[in-house]
Amino acid sequence: MSRAVVLGAAGFIGRRAARALAQRGLEVIGLGHGDWAGSAPADWGLARWQAGDIGLETLDALVGDADVDVYLHCAGGSAVGASYAAPLTDFHRSVSTTAALLEHVRRRGRGRVVLASSAAVYGDQGDVDLTETSVRSPMSPYGFHKQAAEQVGDSYARFFGVDVGVVRLFSVYGEGLRKQLLWDAANKLMRGETGFFGTGHELRDWIHVDDAATLLAAVATTPSGRFDVYNGGHVHASTRQVLGTLAQALDLPLVPAFNGEAHSGNPRRLTADCSHARRQLGWTPTVALADGLRRYARWFLQAHGSAA
Amino acid sequence: MSRAVVLGAAGFIGRRAARALAQRGLEVIGLGHGDWAGSAPADWGLARWQAGDIGLETLDALVGDADVDVYLHCAGGSAVGASYAAPLTDFHRSVSTTAALLEHVRRRGRGRVVLASSAAVYGDQGDVDLTETSVRSPMSPYGFHKQAAEQVGDSYARFFGVDVGVVRLFSVYGEGLRKQLLWDAANKLMRGETGFFGTGHELRDWIHVDDAATLLAAVATTPSGRFDVYNGGHVHASTRQVLGTLAQALDLPLVPAFNGEAHSGNPRRLTADCSHARRQLGWTPTVALADGLRRYARWFLQAHGSAA
Repeated sequence: MSRAVVLGAAGFIGRRAARALAQRGLEVIGLGHGDWAGSAPADWGLARWQAGDIGLETLDALVGDADVDVYLHCAGGSAVGASYAAPLTDFHRSVSTTAALLEHVRRRGRGRVVLASSAAVYGDQGDVDLTETSVRSPMSPYGFHKQAAEQVGDSYARFFGVDVGVVRLFSVYGEGLRKQLLWDAANKLMRGETGFFGTGHELRDWIHVDDAATLLAAVATTPSGRFDVYNGGHVHASTRQVLGTLAQALDLPLVPAFNGEAHSGNPRRLTADCSHARRQLGWTPTVALADGLRRYARWFLQAHGSAA
Repeated sequence: MSRAVVLGAAGFIGRRAARALAQRGLEVIGLGHGDWAGSAPADWGLARWQAGDIGLETLDALVGDADVDVYLHCAGGSAVGASYAAPLTDFHRSVSTTAALLEHVRRRGRGRVVLASSAAVYGDQGDVDLTETSVRSPMSPYGFHKQAAEQVGDSYARFFGVDVGVVRLFSVYGEGLRKQLLWDAANKLMRGETGFFGTGHELRDWIHVDDAATLLAAVATTPSGRFDVYNGGHVHASTRQVLGTLAQALDLPLVPAFNGEAHSGNPRRLTADCSHARRQLGWTPTVALADGLRRYARWFLQAHGSAA
């Protein structure tokens, strides 16, 4: 049986990725911080869970003499806003932990490393679907730190032969996500508020967290012997479309309105060309946006009800 | 009186930069590790020297309530070879310490940060003099880590208004340097060995450490209010020229010979266009290559004599 270590396995994406790896027959060990929110690590496919900081010593102690085939890093920074509020923390989460993981694997001489990165490394590039070779021009500390983490991975692949895959996730959403646009919008809509910042025409590539998890698992279980990068997106949709569909899914007779102000720091368009993952891995996302938003709304109403 | 903190003030470049700042009238506090090799911190212009690791807590404790105008970071990785032998150590020296310094300055809301970076961020770009806007394509872990450190600086400048200058030093040499090409070559030549790796036609931009120090001091004392980058080089010369001149300066009747093998990882040409520093700062390097090599040879013969 193959074995995987998932860093950040208690997180929104990490727990789904852990389960996707377990479903592929891997024994999964989880490491990181986090609140299991009423569920247990075993519910998410973890054979073992270790709470702790991610560092070289922790990893060496966790793994011991075991053979590990895959290390999946889902413990990096996860929010643009937090990277402004506490940039050094975001740096450590995204960059320092990645360097420690790569060094652990270099010294062992075994194991593929997969980094959950972000479309934030691209920044604003106008009216195109981004490919993995598009210019990177991040627009936040979060994006800069993801870029730096990728580059340290590139360096370890190039100079030490570490097998490194990167997945640049676009707008990941799904049940359990208690931050970012959908969470904030659902809360506002439930209060009867319909006014939102922006133009409503901001175009994003939305991907349900279950599809993000199957992509991460596919990249993790497909060694490349080099540094390879995959975009992870699914459906192009504007903020106006998404929030309109969300309001319907919440069964609210509301139409979101936008104040028309474009934000600097908020690209007008951030959409992916995902043909590389489809061709190379045979990966196919399966959760349609309307279905995903319905699932999100159903979960939100339950969470909202139990919080009230 | 203005005040400066020099990180890595005991190092080959750091001590000269500290002295150059002191000569400009700044009170200089040094932090880092290192062997003062028979001299004292005060000999190099330091009002105070604190031995220790560089981190957020150390910096906060060192600076206390004092006003600091300039932080000069000369404590990063200093050798390509070491970055292959111990990449995580090189990462911490170049990248983690830079992130900690930038965060310290962000929280204080005061002070210019100057990073001693390297031409290694450029990599091999063919037959041109590199400008500060040339593509970066590092060819070693050392170069990747310098690039990542610069990018974290760019991020703190862009999103938090920290005043950040970067100096990309080319081939810095001078009295006291006990590693790299000149040290190895001088030792070989003294043993009567004349065979060297490479073609001898590798072109580099040689700059004496005294000129590197005046450039660092000029950048440190010229706030820009943004992220600005300066190349630091002086004289284009081939390895054949430099080692031939070194043999003469050592008074050895030897002519270096080359095995003709080009190394991957060793750019054929790495030369600087330094017009930005000359124009913007009025900086002028003053140590001619032949004079610098004579000074190096004189120091080497004394060091060699006292070691024998």
